[in-house]
Amino acid sequence: MIRFNSDYTEGAHPNLLNRLVETNFEQTGGYGEDEYCAEAAAMIKQICQNEQLAVHFMVGGTQVNLTVIDSALRSHQGVICANTGHINVHETGSIEACGHKVLPLDSDDGKISASQVEALVQHHLQDGAKEHTVQPKMVYISNPTELGTIYSKAELTALHDVCHQYGLYLFLDGARLAYGLTAPDNDLDFPALAQLCDVFYIGGTKVGALFGEAVVIAHPHLQEDFRYIMKQKGGMLAKGRLLGIQFAELMRDNLYLELGQHAVDLAIKLKKACQELNIPFLVENNTNQQFVILSDEIIAKLDEKYTYDYQKRIDDTHSAVRFCTSWCTKEEAVDALIVDLKEWCK
Amino acid sequence: MIRFNSDYTEGAHPNLLNRLVETNFEQTGGYGEDEYCAEAAAMIKQICQNEQLAVHFMVGGTQVNLTVIDSALRSHQGVICANTGHINVHETGSIEACGHKVLPLDSDDGKISASQVEALVQHHLQDGAKEHTVQPKMVYISNPTELGTIYSKAELTALHDVCHQYGLYLFLDGARLAYGLTAPDNDLDFPALAQLCDVFYIGGTKVGALFGEAVVIAHPHLQEDFRYIMKQKGGMLAKGRLLGIQFAELMRDNLYLELGQHAVDLAIKLKKACQELNIPFLVENNTNQQFVILSDEIIAKLDEKYTYDYQKRIDDTHSAVRFCTSWCTKEEAVDALIVDLKEWCK
Amino acid sequence: MIRFNSDYTEGAHPNLLNRLVETNFEQTGGYGEDEYCAEAAAMIKQICQNEQLAVHFMVGGTQVNLTVIDSALRSHQGVICANTGHINVHETGSIEACGHKVLPLDSDDGKISASQVEALVQHHLQDGAKEHTVQPKMVYISNPTELGTIYSKAELTALHDVCHQYGLYLFLDGARLAYGLTAPDNDLDFPALAQLCDVFYIGGTKVGALFGEAVVIAHPHLQEDFRYIMKQKGGMLAKGRLLGIQFAELMRDNLYLELGQHAVDLAIKLKKACQELNIPFLVENNTNQQFVILSDEIIAKLDEKYTYDYQKRIDDTHSAVRFCTSWCTKEEAVDALIVDLKEWCK
Amino acid sequence: MIRFNSDYTEGAHPNLLNRLVETNFEQTGGYGEDEYCAEAAAMIKQICQNEQLAVHFMVGGTQVNLTVIDSALRSHQGVICANTGHINVHETGSIEACGHKVLPLDSDDGKISASQVEALVQHHLQDGAKEHTVQPKMVYISNPTELGTIYSKAELTALHDVCHQYGLYLFLDGARLAYGLTAPDNDLDFPALAQLCDVFYIGGTKVGALFGEAVVIAHPHLQEDFRYIMKQKGGMLAKGRLLGIQFAELMRDNLYLELGQHAVDLAIKLKKACQELNIPFLVENNTNQQFVILSDEIIAKLDEKYTYDYQKRIDDTHSAVRFCTSWCTKEEAVDALIVDLKEWCK
Repeated sequence: MIRFNSDYTEGAHPNLLNRLVETNFEQTGGYGEDEYCAEAAAMIKQICQNEQLAVHFMVGGTQVNLTVIDSALRSHQGVICANTGHINVHETGSIEACGHKVLPLDSDDGKISASQVEALVQHHLQDGAKEHTVQPKMVYISNPTELGTIYSKAELTALHDVCHQYGLYLFLDGARLAYGLTAPDNDLDFPALAQLCDVFYIGGTKVGALFGEAVVIAHPHLQEDFRYIMKQKGGMLAKGRLLGIQFAELMRDNLYLELGQHAVDLAIKLKKACQELNIPFLVENNTNQQFVILSDEIIAKLDEKYTYDYQKRIDDTHSAVRFCTSWCTKEEAVDALIVDLKEWCK
Repeated sequence: MIRFNSDYTEGAHPNLLNRLVETNFEQTGGYGEDEYCAEAAAMIKQICQNEQLAVHFMVGGTQVNLTVIDSALRSHQGVICANTGHINVHETGSIEACGHKVLPLDSDDGKISASQVEALVQHHLQDGAKEHTVQPKMVYISNPTELGTIYSKAELTALHDVCHQYGLYLFLDGARLAYGLTAPDNDLDFPALAQLCDVFYIGGTKVGALFGEAVVIAHPHLQEDFRYIMKQKGGMLAKGRLLGIQFAELMRDNLYLELGQHAVDLAIKLKKACQELNIPFLVENNTNQQFVILSDEIIAKLDEKYTYDYQKRIDDTHSAVRFCTSWCTKEEAVDALIVDLKEWCK
Repeated sequence: MIRFNSDYTEGAHPNLLNRLVETNFEQTGGYGEDEYCAEAAAMIKQICQNEQLAVHFMVGGTQVNLTVIDSALRSHQGVICANTGHINVHETGSIEACGHKVLPLDSDDGKISASQVEALVQHHLQDGAKEHTVQPKMVYISNPTELGTIYSKAELTALHDVCHQYGLYLFLDGARLAYGLTAPDNDLDFPALAQLCDVFYIGGTKVGALFGEAVVIAHPHLQEDFRYIMKQKGGMLAKGRLLGIQFAELMRDNLYLELGQHAVDLAIKLKKACQELNIPFLVENNTNQQFVILSDEIIAKLDEKYTYDYQKRIDDTHSAVRFCTSWCTKEEAVDALIVDLKEWCK
Repeated sequence: MIRFNSDYTEGAHPNLLNRLVETNFEQTGGYGEDEYCAEAAAMIKQICQNEQLAVHFMVGGTQVNLTVIDSALRSHQGVICANTGHINVHETGSIEACGHKVLPLDSDDGKISASQVEALVQHHLQDGAKEHTVQPKMVYISNPTELGTIYSKAELTALHDVCHQYGLYLFLDGARLAYGLTAPDNDLDFPALAQLCDVFYIGGTKVGALFGEAVVIAHPHLQEDFRYIMKQKGGMLAKGRLLGIQFAELMRDNLYLELGQHAVDLAIKLKKACQELNIPFLVENNTNQQFVILSDEIIAKLDEKYTYDYQKRIDDTHSAVRFCTSWCTKEEAVDALIVDLKEWCK
């Protein structure tokens, strides 16, 4: 089987693995208080052009999401997100298990807008609502979103502004950040993220690391005591250097964005082929997740050679599926899929 | 001002208040372990025709909802309800604060159907969902709903059946139960509720009590250790007998349903008058909450003499408002409102 | 049976009950936003000589404790208290259910000292502790304590100072406050409490009310959004005026402290009688709870006529029991007990 | 510096690292549903001689502890442990953050006894306690304990029996299990653990893995839906195979216990040297953590060459420190420490 079902089907990029092997027998302190974590954090601050940032390394995305959100909210406060948001539909209620309501907004493409946020806040502030309802205090977005779309700098700025106006924190989930920052239509970069978001994270698990996410905290309130919450949620890795070592390599010589570019290029190759075959898209985007609508017949053939992520039934004879490329996808694999799709779509 | 804004603007029915005065200097044990609570519980079991029920008395509705739901669910399990459900929009995230996700279903009239529940459960059971998503384990409905509509016996039976099929608990919030059971189109009664629901409550706060809700638990799993959770949530009243005394009076000689009938009769009088005036309804129902759509002009006049509950903007010149009648509403008050509406609608 | 087992065996003082009856058919808004609550809050601020206080009314003590503490603490922060503290041993883990660890300190008499608090904080601040351990952020004391002892003004000032030094909140549980403020050896008063505590509450349930506690919040951080947490925890009474009406009566003409003095006088009468009979005390105090050590033989006789609260086994033939007097205890009841004890101790 | 401060200062045993490198570019499914996890789980079941076990792999110990405990307990239930237990003092309130009270028992050596457990349960069952107090439902022990001591088979059997009698779950934290099972005075083995515990875990992080703990669940109730809670707590590793690969190597050819034996042998060498030098012990044990009491003078010299874990002040001139050996400790390191201690103790 050729796997397009997710972007975490292999291990790590060789640069990272080699450094783990080279440093294996060194002795260091634990819990992220070692020189490798310090080095990686310094590199990230430099790339973001902001020395006031706090950088912490954690193992996985759900862990980051619940730690950041629980750290930010008091008991009566909730987090706004798209109804498709990962925290709303794919983390088994992790935010609610920390005591906070997720406040979903309708979204067709995985994105939410500043005006949607403002409308929700205004509704909360009406008489009869307020203390009888959850107080919105944070906005959670992902970039790219769960549907592969990305925010423009203008959109992110508008979200930042509305959050600032109403005293909300803005949190950007960057599990697939490299695949957004290298999209052809992207106009965001690390310094912009550090300036517009109160907190965001740079995803490693899906971009060349064995595991790991780098949490970048800009807002001083959110920096305070963050390590307490990390520890409490089981998110402080004993051998924390494993994260520092990997992120130092990802940040070195622009490797992180190169890996992103690789996946995006292959995704766009696949996208163009589908367009030429008049295959419709569930949502159009230019990142590493391509959502296409295929007939049952083609899906049956697909099942024999490829894995993919099933999305949903579209009509009596069609369903939407997701193909993921990644830092590690071979061009031959994409070419093989294109050849087959051409054959099946004849 | 004449108040139609809610059904809890006065104190208690004289029968209840008199008994509180008469028994004031008696000495009893605390925490609901007194003879008055025992008497009231026995009366409720008899009215429900089921000796296996467990009956507990609590002070208020939010308290009951969070205690029952937290008592029933493990950490990864959620509760299904209408998107208009009180627990979803009007309890400041009380369920989430106990660690559980509320799983809302679309609803125009405040009700949800067995087929909606089944579809949600089926979606959860799909590959790729399951452990990555919240497990539905309870269905919460209110009767009458927050929009004054009621469930028929057939609808409730269908919900019971789908819950039974998939191992979900069925919980009915009866904060306004008397106003549902006395509606002209109602075909439910206490024995049916005790048979079809795993747990429900009989609302006193809105039907003649100073405060108090009687929780009726049919399912043995939900009966186990319920008093622990009551205590933990601050829901075990020290002088518990105050609840027992009030509920014994409410249950005595059918007073509870008589109070309900009074409010329903007046609500229907108001409804008919509005119909004659061609005032449109946001949602039609035959219980004590009437939701009508009025022009800004009329609302401005209303504001001078009456209180009501503002619902939402309908169009540029109209809004929906709610009028509540209660066990204590005077017929003169309804008549005055009808006279004024006739005058204003000329 | 003559009941000495607790101080909440009867209903309410007639002044309160009469006002509830008189006002029964008035219509008011709900949730504590009525004129009676406003009046009672104003009276409390005046008695405390501080207009900046926020005053809220809730139904019971466990509810107050969990609401105040959950409102004050972030997820990684804990609350220090005596190991005998009500929140540590008698609230079914209500604080932990809100996500916070209770940090108990050893105590023989129910009190904790400033130096104990400082030692715990210092231990937390050591290398290797900090983020690996719960951060102490609040001190909870009760006055009188669960063992009937009281804090002197000097002791409370020392606690205030150490809390201030380390950024901790000081919270005083005053479920039995009247019985402490009227003890012969007391030197605290309402203005001192409002000055030295960040938050405290004035207990009504055990001092003449049907139910009710008045939460007095001095610290601005703790005032913010308190009503959200009240609502979320099910602690916002629908007919909130019932609390305002009762507290206005308790505060009027010094009734609250008169009720306290009545119980204290009777308790000291009982204490002196026991001293004369050489009955030993588990803990000595001058408030309404008297803890005496009796032989099994005497306890067997006691069981025939009186209720009391069993404390613990002392040796092979003796146990400690608690006698409570209250605002409602009749002098004849205490006299009868004294006569019997004299007879049995012959 | 030579590091004796913990048993997780290096990376992984070469066998594990090599397999990670060899398998790096294979494509597998995520979340622990791959063939490597299946293989490792099968090996563990075989070693435990029980096919009915459920085996799950997680990244770290705090994560396991909070997931297992939250999975097992309802909201009003608590977990009994030694006051020195890791969950009580070194996990930043992770159990309380899940809503459950930790019920500590006094312990000088890190162990608790069946009779202590029974006494606590009996106390809970007394009148006046029960629903007003947390219901004990699980016993948490660690083996070796935080003080390096181990349970005998007889002691573990007694705990199992008392748990069974009162309906409590028995959970054994095996973060350092290899160092207990290879102690000279140990009489436990994997089959005994699987038979006597309802759930336990085999620690990898401290015994040759980069990270990872294998959770072994015997009790059917605890097996149900465990993966939901794993996911919710952020404890389900995306590239789950990294755990399966490592545990398969640890289990292969008895490597796990060999690594344990290596550390224990070196610890005992150090212990004997200390005994010969008349250095006193804080707690005596035969596992990889040695707790010795040294003078300030010697500690000052120690600080120049070695790291260790400071325990606590013993008297005006002495403190207790912990030396850890591990699977990776070099005999030369221990020898160097022994030589120095001999020199300093002259």
